[in-house]
Amino acid sequence: MRRQSFAEMHCSIAQTLEIVGEWWTLLVLRDLFYGISQFDALQESLGIARNILTVRLQTLVEHGLVERRRYQERPERFEYILTAKGRDLQDVLLAFMRWGDRWLAGEAGPPLVFTHTLCEHELTPVMICKYCNQRVEPEDLRVQP
Amino acid sequence: MRRQSFAEMHCSIAQTLEIVGEWWTLLVLRDLFYGISQFDALQESLGIARNILTVRLQTLVEHGLVERRRYQERPERFEYILTAKGRDLQDVLLAFMRWGDRWLAGEAGPPLVFTHTLCEHELTPVMICKYCNQRVEPEDLRVQP
Repeated sequence: MRRQSFAEMHCSIAQTLEIVGEWWTLLVLRDLFYGISQFDALQESLGIARNILTVRLQTLVEHGLVERRRYQERPERFEYILTAKGRDLQDVLLAFMRWGDRWLAGEAGPPLVFTHTLCEHELTPVMICKYCNQRVEPEDLRVQP
Repeated sequence: MRRQSFAEMHCSIAQTLEIVGEWWTLLVLRDLFYGISQFDALQESLGIARNILTVRLQTLVEHGLVERRRYQERPERFEYILTAKGRDLQDVLLAFMRWGDRWLAGEAGPPLVFTHTLCEHELTPVMICKYCNQRVEPEDLRVQP
């Protein structure tokens, strides 16, 4: 059964989900951010079926988030590298991580803690308004006509 | 076929996806953020099958992101309200919106443009480090041991 497409919805959230909202895709992107680039290494890291990983990577390549590069000729081997469009999903992954760290981590604390190397402090990402630098809260938003 | 669960993965992104990564769920949350709270209104706004909406809302209630409140007795009617845990997903939705606005909107521009009422400028959300206020880039992160 083909699931309903969100592509025609007049909404950037829906259109983004159409590309990256499939089960597994954001975890594939997470591993690409971590620098895992070869098919076998992705497959092993994720524990994903090879045919599903193939389809997910194809979708990401088709939409220009990932570039497929041959790094070996005989036998032919490819690696998968994030493009600028793919790397720009970093805020999505950071937002997921922060929420999980805050609401799902038990007493043992978050699974992974990052240091922000620009300031050498533990990373807590926050979404702000680029113009006024204040934290964005839903109640402070108004749709423009 | 039950899809593979991400719940046991030692990763906050995976654990968050286990709750909100199902097809439709983030759009249900989006509509709850927009203040749509009644089942019929959600169903109409999304164009989703009633049985799928029921299951998605149940999952959100079970995990404490949404509260189900009776607002009418005869006949019994319920509304769905985001809890603090659910509202805290705002950064996830903002990150999706910004990416879609940037990479998928055609010449007509983004489907929806928001004004940030604290500064009365058009909203561009940016993810920063809470400590040093600089934009978070993946290359500036180091995993803590």
